[in-house]
Amino acid sequence: MKVLVHIDDALAWRDALSQRLIDLGVENAEVVTSQEASRAERTSADYLAAWKPDEALLRDCTSLKGIINLGAGVDALLANPALPAGVPIVKLRDAGMAELIADYVRYGLLHFQRDFDRYARQQAERRWQPLALVDKQDWQVGVLGLGAIGAKVAKAIAADGFPVLGWSRSPKNIEGIQCHHGEQGLNQLLGQVKTLVLLLPDTPDTQHLINASTLAKLPAGASLINPGRGSLIDETALIEALGAHDAPGRLRGALLDAFVVEPLANDNPLWTHPRVLITPHMAGPTPLRDARSGDH
Amino acid sequence: MKVLVHIDDALAWRDALSQRLIDLGVENAEVVTSQEASRAERTSADYLAAWKPDEALLRDCTSLKGIINLGAGVDALLANPALPAGVPIVKLRDAGMAELIADYVRYGLLHFQRDFDRYARQQAERRWQPLALVDKQDWQVGVLGLGAIGAKVAKAIAADGFPVLGWSRSPKNIEGIQCHHGEQGLNQLLGQVKTLVLLLPDTPDTQHLINASTLAKLPAGASLINPGRGSLIDETALIEALGAHDAPGRLRGALLDAFVVEPLANDNPLWTHPRVLITPHMAGPTPLRDARSGDH
Repeated sequence: MKVLVHIDDALAWRDALSQRLIDLGVENAEVVTSQEASRAERTSADYLAAWKPDEALLRDCTSLKGIINLGAGVDALLANPALPAGVPIVKLRDAGMAELIADYVRYGLLHFQRDFDRYARQQAERRWQPLALVDKQDWQVGVLGLGAIGAKVAKAIAADGFPVLGWSRSPKNIEGIQCHHGEQGLNQLLGQVKTLVLLLPDTPDTQHLINASTLAKLPAGASLINPGRGSLIDETALIEALGAHDAPGRLRGALLDAFVVEPLANDNPLWTHPRVLITPHMAGPTPLRDARSGDH
Repeated sequence: MKVLVHIDDALAWRDALSQRLIDLGVENAEVVTSQEASRAERTSADYLAAWKPDEALLRDCTSLKGIINLGAGVDALLANPALPAGVPIVKLRDAGMAELIADYVRYGLLHFQRDFDRYARQQAERRWQPLALVDKQDWQVGVLGLGAIGAKVAKAIAADGFPVLGWSRSPKNIEGIQCHHGEQGLNQLLGQVKTLVLLLPDTPDTQHLINASTLAKLPAGASLINPGRGSLIDETALIEALGAHDAPGRLRGALLDAFVVEPLANDNPLWTHPRVLITPHMAGPTPLRDARSGDH
């Protein structure tokens, strides 16, 4: 399968798309930019992922099975006289990445705050026992990483009614978020939060930021949500903090979407830990999929 | 344990409180109104649930272990010269019932829309496979019941970005909600929704409204959330629609908080159905609990 990429920052798109196709288990995908593609490669391309392709490019692509429109509107493409008839056009998902990730985090927060984890365990024992509720207003959430995504997610959660403490390496000021920064700020935040959300980038500074020492600073019974990067977490320390299957440790549970090795290795103990939810890197968008194809 | 209730509609509060204490598994609770209570009963009361109790009543209650303030502000009570010193005052939960129920519904919607049910099953098989996402914008939600709670929940879900279809017996007009009514309107709604939410009262008209016939009108793969009343559902038809444990039926799954008999009987097949989540009538508030006591 050959995919041609035509857009301003085509190299970045090419690399992201290649990685995503591997993640999705698509075998033998070859992604090339329209600039680096030879005439023969244009002719044999199966898919074109493009933003406003010129007529010449569209005329060269005579084997297309589909066009992925990378921008926000499809009108320019539809108006192109060289657009081949009968080739499906797939739009990029409307929902922004931040909104998708915010919903993922929302689910995780409600999972712990409303005790759905405990009720699932009670159900397994056919036990009917309402538990004392901690109000959202008293459920402090820590968001590590206040970049474009992190800041939007923090604001979305705060709008839901959770008190949000944010953290970034350098000082930030976000309305409605109690912002902390630097090493001391991190320690202050960790001591106060019922759920910790990881939205930091993967840099040498953030690798294994969540380790035995930082996990020990969380209040007992805290929970963890990672829709970010696998490298942020020292998995051995995480498993230790979660405790044995029948003897909960300091951490109440974790909802994890990103891992050091993906797909998660078959023998990774996280798969079977009773207080861990594993999702296969789906918190953000899966750009190559048509929203409507998911009608299962 | 004796609880004295002092408020305008004390009889309704007495009955609701009695039922709630039974639900919560509190044994031997006796709830009486301040009007029906004898002087001796006042003296021996363990708890007083009251809104603006008069001085005489407070002076009579000499055995109190706690006072539950039933109104929205505690100032009148604190200003009462007969308030006994050292007796804890418990406030009523700040969060409104509609907000709590909306969060419950939100959790259920994300559970199905974001495939957390499927990912949990994949996790049990150590399977890493991202699934095609149906965007929120394409996930129609039906809300049956547009009373005070239903209307607020419908609006909260619509604000989250889900298209919401509402239904009530008589016509209603709610901004942002596609309102249906009557029998024909119900059929129209059922055919279009990916998730059905039940927020109707328990009346002769609503009993078993969700039965084999109405369930068959839902699209294949639809899901059900019931934070309302157990009597709305014909449980036999529901179990039939859910299918066998290893052979899914028309219904994808259900999140259920209310049942005909509560606590849910030990031999009820819903307990063990792999596509059913059971919660013990916790979607709404549990009024006798202090928000802070839940710090587990």
